[in-house]
Amino acid sequence: MAPVTNGRLLFKEVPTGYPVPGQTTAYDDSEKIDPETVALNGGFLVKTLVLSIDPYLRGRMRAPTSKSYSPPFAINEPLTNFGVGVVVRSENPAVKAGDHLYGFFKFQHYTVETNAAQFKVLENKEGLPWSAYLGVVGMPGETAVYAWNEFSKAKKGETVFVSAGSGPVGATVIQLAKAQGLKVIASAGSEEKVEFVRSVGADVAFNYKTASTSEILEKEGPIDIYWDNVGGETLEAALEHAARYGRLIECGMISQYNSAPYHVKNLIQIVSKELSVHGFIVGSLRDKYGADFYANFPARVASGEIKYKEHRVLGLEKAGHALLDVLRGDNFGKSVIVVADE
Amino acid sequence: MAPVTNGRLLFKEVPTGYPVPGQTTAYDDSEKIDPETVALNGGFLVKTLVLSIDPYLRGRMRAPTSKSYSPPFAINEPLTNFGVGVVVRSENPAVKAGDHLYGFFKFQHYTVETNAAQFKVLENKEGLPWSAYLGVVGMPGETAVYAWNEFSKAKKGETVFVSAGSGPVGATVIQLAKAQGLKVIASAGSEEKVEFVRSVGADVAFNYKTASTSEILEKEGPIDIYWDNVGGETLEAALEHAARYGRLIECGMISQYNSAPYHVKNLIQIVSKELSVHGFIVGSLRDKYGADFYANFPARVASGEIKYKEHRVLGLEKAGHALLDVLRGDNFGKSVIVVADE
Repeated sequence: MAPVTNGRLLFKEVPTGYPVPGQTTAYDDSEKIDPETVALNGGFLVKTLVLSIDPYLRGRMRAPTSKSYSPPFAINEPLTNFGVGVVVRSENPAVKAGDHLYGFFKFQHYTVETNAAQFKVLENKEGLPWSAYLGVVGMPGETAVYAWNEFSKAKKGETVFVSAGSGPVGATVIQLAKAQGLKVIASAGSEEKVEFVRSVGADVAFNYKTASTSEILEKEGPIDIYWDNVGGETLEAALEHAARYGRLIECGMISQYNSAPYHVKNLIQIVSKELSVHGFIVGSLRDKYGADFYANFPARVASGEIKYKEHRVLGLEKAGHALLDVLRGDNFGKSVIVVADE
Repeated sequence: MAPVTNGRLLFKEVPTGYPVPGQTTAYDDSEKIDPETVALNGGFLVKTLVLSIDPYLRGRMRAPTSKSYSPPFAINEPLTNFGVGVVVRSENPAVKAGDHLYGFFKFQHYTVETNAAQFKVLENKEGLPWSAYLGVVGMPGETAVYAWNEFSKAKKGETVFVSAGSGPVGATVIQLAKAQGLKVIASAGSEEKVEFVRSVGADVAFNYKTASTSEILEKEGPIDIYWDNVGGETLEAALEHAARYGRLIECGMISQYNSAPYHVKNLIQIVSKELSVHGFIVGSLRDKYGADFYANFPARVASGEIKYKEHRVLGLEKAGHALLDVLRGDNFGKSVIVVADE
């Protein structure tokens, strides 16, 4: 096999607002690789199949001096994120050619890796699409299941409000809540997304761009649980319409990532309604819930009990645009880049 | 005994910012009572000895249409709050003359009460001043002990920041934290208060009016626990300098009660640092911790292990001013109105 282009999506510049494809990231095709002959030096060669596009990536597009829970991207280096790849060749006894690996991948077609421990070999007995391991049975699904188990204290008959309900986290939360007998209110950003949110079980679904979140919650609440994916004005409405002893699960604040933060005005509600507000990072809960998740959740998805929706984008060169779409809410379903077929 | 004036502090008008003594409250001496002959109708006559002045009273000076956790005051009726009184005469077998009662009292000298169950008969084996039952062994002390037990998850060697550290809640929290081996950072609003805060055990004490809270926390933090009595800009600084997995105990937000709310800009820290934020009302925790508190805490106070400071104001007619002082932070120590001697 002759050398092939090993295309990469590089981080070029820290964005000030939304990332700008071609400027803050750029696709680079200057590297070549021969998959059959590249030196492995005891490692293994992985071909990237699918990569995940997630809102939190915006937080990694920052100056390295700015502290956060996840490492910043390095200028002129490829982005990295969760992905699934297939082992092409291996000199490491822990993995063999044909194994499918889940873990952190560089945004490039082929990578020689040395540390097998940083990947999980996917068995996929259920025969799910590999991309599902980036969504409903990957990090977003883990996020929903782990934090719901840890923080919701859900009781049958309670009411939960889920923002960004059509995303992979939100849609999973809706289904977990319905399975426990809660009333589910969910918001999404288009009529089509609202329809999907309703189809996975939301009792009340609305388009936050055309309806008032506060008015809906006034009518359908008060809410015992708020699953917050967006922060800002929606969080303020949720505080206003929270029930006494309400639990707020702070999964993300996508409305705050690309603009000046919205200033929530009614934090006093935390005191007067005796609310609990929990922030979390999925990785911190993995030790506690991970084994059970991977043992049981893929089967619930494969059986159709848990539904999901994917937004598949073909081609690594489109990853910068795909991220922008996710940050703007222009995707519909879990956003994945299909880098290559097997 | 001839009839005496039964002076009352009446709620006259909902304040827009700070209450205005003489306008939003007024002392009224139009009522007379003869303690020896007033009809009891099966009830009992209580002489008010001490009344508590607390920041939360501002929240009750509102229009009745505005919902909150505590009932609003009624126009032209006396304020009410925790107090201690002595039974003068009784036709109710549950209480007898000479009993000291703790509970909700009207802001007036004498009251005929019918429901003994709403009061607690104080034994006071420790011989504490009755006013202590309004502070360190009353509601503020309960507040500190209950919520510290419930939410702090304190571990030896951790760092806690307590705002309003010279108040009855803050000063008690400081001592609970020190007893568990934590490093305590505390703020107060004058040099004299800072000195007191240091005297009860704070490792780092500062005057928030002359030093930057954020700079102190940058130097002395990060903080594992924030006990929030004030909200607003101080809460923002605490979020900024919170440690990962930090716990914020939202006891009150006095900085927000009398003015337009300060808009906290960095709520995203809740997500990225995996913080937990707990609001609470002391009454909700009383069933769980109250019996233990009253069985054990007064002895710790009487022995001098737990210190406290009182701000005693003589005369019910001064209660309106005393509340204003509390809301402005012009008191020093637990504010009590001494209504009468025994």
